[in-house]
Order: sequence, then C-alpha cells, then structure tokens
Amino acid sequence: MSKSQVKSVYFHKAGNASVLQIESHDAKEPASGEVRINVEAIGLNRAEVMFREAQYLEAPVFPARLGYEASGTIDAVGEGVTQLKVGDRVSTIPSFSMGQYGVYGQSAIMPEHAAVPYPESLSAVEGASIWMQYLTAFGALIELGQLQKEQTVLITAASSSVGLAAIQIAKQVGATAIVTSRTSAKKAALLSAGADHVVVTDDEDLVDRVMSITDGQGADLIFDPIAGAIVEQLAAAAAQGATLIEYGALSSEDTAFPLMHALAKGLTIRGYTLFEIVQDEARLQRGISFVENGLASGSLKPILDKNFKLEDIQQAHEYMESNKQFGKITVSV
Amino acid sequence: MSKSQVKSVYFHKAGNASVLQIESHDAKEPASGEVRINVEAIGLNRAEVMFREAQYLEAPVFPARLGYEASGTIDAVGEGVTQLKVGDRVSTIPSFSMGQYGVYGQSAIMPEHAAVPYPESLSAVEGASIWMQYLTAFGALIELGQLQKEQTVLITAASSSVGLAAIQIAKQVGATAIVTSRTSAKKAALLSAGADHVVVTDDEDLVDRVMSITDGQGADLIFDPIAGAIVEQLAAAAAQGATLIEYGALSSEDTAFPLMHALAKGLTIRGYTLFEIVQDEARLQRGISFVENGLASGSLKPILDKNFKLEDIQQAHEYMESNKQFGKITVSV
Repeated sequence: MSKSQVKSVYFHKAGNASVLQIESHDAKEPASGEVRINVEAIGLNRAEVMFREAQYLEAPVFPARLGYEASGTIDAVGEGVTQLKVGDRVSTIPSFSMGQYGVYGQSAIMPEHAAVPYPESLSAVEGASIWMQYLTAFGALIELGQLQKEQTVLITAASSSVGLAAIQIAKQVGATAIVTSRTSAKKAALLSAGADHVVVTDDEDLVDRVMSITDGQGADLIFDPIAGAIVEQLAAAAAQGATLIEYGALSSEDTAFPLMHALAKGLTIRGYTLFEIVQDEARLQRGISFVENGLASGSLKPILDKNFKLEDIQQAHEYMESNKQFGKITVSV
Repeated sequence: MSKSQVKSVYFHKAGNASVLQIESHDAKEPASGEVRINVEAIGLNRAEVMFREAQYLEAPVFPARLGYEASGTIDAVGEGVTQLKVGDRVSTIPSFSMGQYGVYGQSAIMPEHAAVPYPESLSAVEGASIWMQYLTAFGALIELGQLQKEQTVLITAASSSVGLAAIQIAKQVGATAIVTSRTSAKKAALLSAGADHVVVTDDEDLVDRVMSITDGQGADLIFDPIAGAIVEQLAAAAAQGATLIEYGALSSEDTAFPLMHALAKGLTIRGYTLFEIVQDEARLQRGISFVENGLASGSLKPILDKNFKLEDIQQAHEYMESNKQFGKITVSV
C-alpha cells in the first residue's frame, strides 16, 4: 500500500465545516517510532471543531489535517517500534499534537505510544469511540475528583460522549449522577443511560433542583465543558469543599470566577484536559486498565449516535455542532 | 471584675470607620463552655473592615461587636471549661462567628476552643498577631499548597500580615518567594523580610518578571487576596499544574475565570479561608504546632506595624484601609 493513493481530510483555512476537503495523496511511510494505521473508523469530538475554527489550545498550520480518534489495522511500522506489528488491530489515544498528526482519512501515521489494541469484542466504530470519552471522564471523576460511593456528581452537557461516559463511570463507582440537558428532548434517553436525575435547564432552576436532590448539601463534584454563565450556578449548587472540573469552552460567554461561593465553600475550580492523563504514564496506564475492565464487565459501553461516510465529513461536523447528538458521532472509512 | 463597667467597640450600622463607637457596659459572664479574657492587645485584619462594611462572608446584626484577634488573661470561666483556668495568658484563634463573639474591647467572651496559650517569649501585642496570619498562610502554603523546597511561590499583597507570614513560611520550607507590591516604597522592606524577588506592579510586567525569574516555568503556587483583574495575570504567570489560592476580595473589580490558561496548564484555582483550617481539628492542631515550632526556632517572627490605643479604633481602621502598613496593625487596650 505504500505507493498507493489514499484519501485524507485537509483544511487550508480556519472556518466552518465547509473548509474540510477530501484530498488524495501518496500514503506516507512511518518514521522512526511511528506506525501507520489503515483506518476503518473515526470518532469525532469537539476539540476537532475548535481546531478547525482555530479556537483550540493548538493552532492549525495549513494545509492542516485533523482528528484524534481512529481505529484500524497497522499496515506499516517505522524503525524502533517494539510493541506493535503489522496486522495489529488498534485505536488511537489522543496523546499527540493534532498539528503534527491527524487521523481523518484512510491512512494515519501515529506515534507508537498513541496506538493501543482495543478489546476484540468491540466493532471498529466502537473501538474508535472509547479512549477519548472514557479516559477524559476517568481522569476527571476518578484521578482528580476521587469520586466515592455516596457522593453526588453533577454532569453538564451530559448527552455528549464524554458526558455519557461520565454517567457510566459514576454508576460504576456507586455515586449519584445528576445531569443537565437544555431541553426535555433527551431526558428519557439520559435516564436510560443511567442518570439518576435529569435537570432540564430551560425549564428548571438548576441550583434549586440540585439542592433539593441533595438535601441542601449540594454536589460534591461537578464536571462541566460549557463554562460561561453556568459556572456561577454550578458554584451555587456545589457542596462545601466541592471541586468543579472545567474541561471545555462550549459557551461563547465570558466565564466569571465565582469568588464569593469559592471563599465561602472552599471550592476548587480546576481546568482539565485529557493531556494531563495521557502525558502521565502512570495515570494513563491506570486509565487504560480502568477502561478495559469496565468494557469487559459491561459497566462501560460506548453509546453510538450517527455514523457518517468519510465523504460526508462536512455534514458530520455540522451535525456535531447542531447539539442534536446523543453519544458518539462516528465516520466509517 | 464581673460587675464592673468595661469598654467595647460597637457599630450600629454598616459603613466606613466612623461607624465604630466605644461604649461602656457591664462585663458579661461566660456561659457554659466559654471563657472571659481581660484583653491586653488586639490584632486588626481585613475581615473586620469587610464585616464593618457588611461585605464579609457573615453579615453583622446590630448592635454589632467585631474582632477576631486578641490577647490577654483569662479572668472568668464558664461551666464545663476544662483546658483553661483563670490567670492563663491566651490569645484567640479566629474559629468563631464574629456575629456571635467580638474581641474589640477591654473584655471578650470566647468559646474555650478559640483561646490558646501563646509562647511566653512574646509580648501581648505579638501574641495578638500570630494565629490569624500564620495559620492562614500555613493552611494555604503547607496544608493545601504542599509547598516544597525548589518550588516557587508568588505572594501578592505581600506587605499585609498574612503576606509577610507567607514569606516567612516559604523561606522556612526553602522555597523561592516572589512577591508583589504596587509601588517601590516597600521593596527594600520586603527584601529584608525575606522575599527573594519583589515585583513592583506599577512599574514592571508581572508575567514577564515571574517568567524571567523562573526560567520560563512560572510559579508553582500563587497566594492572592486581591482577586479582580490580577487573576488573569496570575494565571499567565502560573506554571503547568500550578495552584492559585484566592483568599480574599480586596479588589472591587469583577474576577474573570482564566479559562484558557486553566485548560492549557491544568490550573487549580482554589477559594480559601482560615475556617477550613480552624474547623478541622487535625489541621488546626498541625497548624498550632507548626506556628509554635516556627516561633520557637525564630523562623517565624511577627512583623509589627503601628500600635493604636483603643480610643483611636477609627483611625486604626482608616490606617488599615490606607494600605500604607507593613505588617500587623495592633491596638493596646
């Protein structure tokens, strides 16, 4: 396959989904320490939308590829690769720079450490859906938040893949999961996905509901990718000594620091990204074991939303931005 | 003394220092679990200014007394008091409600747990100056911040009693103390007090200076009572994985949450008050031992600023609000 043409998604300027283009080029050879994956499926996430818009932590350099999550089979290995071989079925852990690597396409070069065998029981689409969502939620709820049975975790944007992963992890721990959704459209699905309580924020007062559910104590741990104006409410709904983990910037509003709640309750407000887990070898290994065990026991099971074709990558991004999804959006290659 | 008249400071409405009045009344008797202190000296702090202005975490109920810190001799004990006796020389730990107790005056009732013998080598004025400043800085730098040798701590409003206490504790740990001061007026005094570097924020760029001092790494721990606009700069000056401890609201500006720095660096931003230490028996006992040991070894030594008479309590508060002080403002009774 080394001299054959492959298709990849590129963008040449920042912008909306229409900047994404499919282009053909020779398949690249893996350099030292790298492997090449013949891609079967891709998982989409918000970081890629932000990267496309040049709003991400890392700025694109054009022409740019993108994409953190893919599954497939290794079809070439570079020098010095010791843990993986041609034919291995792997999926990618987002522990690399999107500016340097990008998985949207038929072929993806990866540093060896970012390609990990995934459970045989999973389909390729499921395999492309596990690491980002479960490791992100694991890092926040288990490693940083040290969520315990009897505690209450408040999860916003709960219909996202990471939000649903957090619900499953909370239930595995035995904690109470209160989740938010803007409208009632996804309420039944969230309850089916394991949420103990759903607060419909367009209709209900978030602070009142959380205080009512927790007998006035508030939530012990809060996991929020929205930021903006909701942070003040989250701080008001927090328990004494609670931790708020902020892991995104979905809101376009400025985020105020809830100083008076923070002082009165001794709140910890924590910025967090998956990089804190994947760049720490001990945490990453604990995370991989946690996810493998959860998938094996059935307490973790990826919830899949729509599946697109690679040719429809623009529509796939538009769908992600519509906020209509419930679970992981994937692309089959 | 039980039937004699004593003078106390009262205020009958919130406002500037002029609301403080000296009034005479019969000395109160301690109730069960309480002791009465014949007050010799009082230590002033910002919480009392905020309480006077009805801007504090707790609202005054009029007529209100105020004051957290005093030293003196116990002259009466209530029922059930077991650890203290008449004649003991004690100073107060702010582990009580200012609305319920207040020490500005010749006589102060205290719950027994809040009155603690202080080292004999200290004067009454020094005794009234130790617990608030050292326990506050201990809790932040040692208990929460776990400051280590080789680390860098950035201390704002460093000429306050707590700021100076933090410098002394940082030096005891062996950490590097970078401190801020708005003007150069206090620079030499801050260096004499143990600061390794003084950033004059009216003249110098805080972020550039901290990055230059730390070889581009940033500060590992930040201890700030100002909040407002400086928080964005503090986050920019923070190291990867740093903790910002916010322990006050001296600024009248709104405080933005520095979301992008928090995400990119995995920052922890923590609201903190001394109550987290004094209401946790294990932490409090560790703190008392830490302060006693530091005072005995000489690594902690309270830095005293002006001393006022009780009759001049209004001027003492005005002086505190002038920001001209360097160290603890005290009142002799």
